[in-house]
Amino acid sequence: MTIERDLQQWLQANLSTSPQLSVGFGDDAAVLRQAADNGTVVTTDLLTDGVDFLLDEVDPRLVGHKALGVNLSDLAAMASRPVVAFVSLALPRDGTAGLSCLELAIELYRGMLPLADRYELVIAGGDTNTWDAPLVISITVLGETTEHGPLTRSGGQSGDLLLATGTFGGSILGRHLRVEPRVSEALLLHDQYELHAGIDVSDGLSLDTARLAAASGVGAQIDLSAIPIADAACRLSEQDKKSSRDHALGDGEDFELILAVPPAEAERILRDQPLELPIAGIGELVDMPGLWGLDLAGQRVPLDPQGYQHRGNA
Amino acid sequence: MTIERDLQQWLQANLSTSPQLSVGFGDDAAVLRQAADNGTVVTTDLLTDGVDFLLDEVDPRLVGHKALGVNLSDLAAMASRPVVAFVSLALPRDGTAGLSCLELAIELYRGMLPLADRYELVIAGGDTNTWDAPLVISITVLGETTEHGPLTRSGGQSGDLLLATGTFGGSILGRHLRVEPRVSEALLLHDQYELHAGIDVSDGLSLDTARLAAASGVGAQIDLSAIPIADAACRLSEQDKKSSRDHALGDGEDFELILAVPPAEAERILRDQPLELPIAGIGELVDMPGLWGLDLAGQRVPLDPQGYQHRGNA
Repeated sequence: MTIERDLQQWLQANLSTSPQLSVGFGDDAAVLRQAADNGTVVTTDLLTDGVDFLLDEVDPRLVGHKALGVNLSDLAAMASRPVVAFVSLALPRDGTAGLSCLELAIELYRGMLPLADRYELVIAGGDTNTWDAPLVISITVLGETTEHGPLTRSGGQSGDLLLATGTFGGSILGRHLRVEPRVSEALLLHDQYELHAGIDVSDGLSLDTARLAAASGVGAQIDLSAIPIADAACRLSEQDKKSSRDHALGDGEDFELILAVPPAEAERILRDQPLELPIAGIGELVDMPGLWGLDLAGQRVPLDPQGYQHRGNA
Repeated sequence: MTIERDLQQWLQANLSTSPQLSVGFGDDAAVLRQAADNGTVVTTDLLTDGVDFLLDEVDPRLVGHKALGVNLSDLAAMASRPVVAFVSLALPRDGTAGLSCLELAIELYRGMLPLADRYELVIAGGDTNTWDAPLVISITVLGETTEHGPLTRSGGQSGDLLLATGTFGGSILGRHLRVEPRVSEALLLHDQYELHAGIDVSDGLSLDTARLAAASGVGAQIDLSAIPIADAACRLSEQDKKSSRDHALGDGEDFELILAVPPAEAERILRDQPLELPIAGIGELVDMPGLWGLDLAGQRVPLDPQGYQHRGNA
């Protein structure tokens, strides 16, 4: 059983360190120094072969990228800065097609490292295991709030406009693996504008919007003609006859941000377009609890929150 | 797929909250307030069915207890206070003998909660998944250092005496599940005495002692006649003809503490016996690198570090 030792050697040669880590790899636990005024933000996601990815069909680097990316997307939803990650693996003992167990582990890390480096995130520890079953990756990321505090799901108010970054739908065609967490975008918006609430779309635009509204004690109305639809949603629609809008509403794993913003401030964001990707108005928070659609005729219709009922800090 | 929602309801009714949590369950991440002067200590362990426990044969509450206990034992090794835990599960979709998937999850938590309550540890989030494979539990615990700072593996010096809490060997007969993390013991000793280094015995007395010595840049000599041998090691020895001392040296999962302590201070601890369980001198750190045994004739003999090469903050 030398995989852990071999992997540790590889990690020590390939991982960055950080002045925030006073004790890193090789002890019983890691110790972080932290800025006194900032809250510590913690998120964790566990991904399994067969559910979150198909190891037989995809590059393990993409699997590593996704596993870290979904955690960073949660930090983006809190408008918090990533600091340090802990990676635990349950590796299939015999590896996977063409890769030994150790090679698989290294490929997973090779998928994580560029994403970690982009945010100056340090991988500071974890737990490496082998077993006679499929791959499991469990990552915990610690971040810190900025001087503006955390952006929560619960701060929305009736009348807030709902803004969305990017486009939605069809992520199963590839984007669900190539997660682009909106960390920088969230930090910029939280710094320069007044935001009331935020969530990342992991399970579905309609379901996650309904969650933000419910956490804020209000309802949400989505303008169905205003949803930014991804090209992938259109391509998928041609295959399965479901409308591209329904794909956009329910597919999930877009990892875009939904923000609740006071109206004047929202207008300013829409006018400024301060991000490198488009940000669009997709609806508003309303007094009437529940999820509502504004259809093409301008009528309010009840909307069934659709998406994958699985993720989140449960 | 309502298991996550059902489990969340159960958790919200059964989990404690903490003034240190400014955002808890139900958002994208948890947010902690922290005392400014204390370092944040992070440890994570992933346990799998078939390796760390056999779900077919044991009470799932014991599995939950063990999964949290091994993390707390890592915090004990750092002489740090537990604060908050994050629990991620990959649950077999069809549950296990006699228990549905949801019932299994609740039994796991029922095993964790008494241990969490004992240390005023709050379970503040996690990620619940189902899949078509055996149970995986991945827990990350955040703690805080005391005003004495963290106790590391690397502070030992040649001439330090090696002290051990409790007894060793035969944990497979039951103790490996009934983990008793030495958190209170470590905090008391770190507060009242000068300790140089510490480690918890997860993989084996000899292997973990060798790790402490190597991290400190010295060697270790274990007095083979002084090892406190557990009753279970004797019982196991009767079954398999391996000596009870060899069981004590190599079995692992005792979750006792090995401490490197300056000689005068060590003598004071041995005289005071300040814990509710015995603490014994089992050897010393020496200049000569490597692991050595002092045999019954008083001769120094090379000792092969034995144990399970698997755990630790890799």
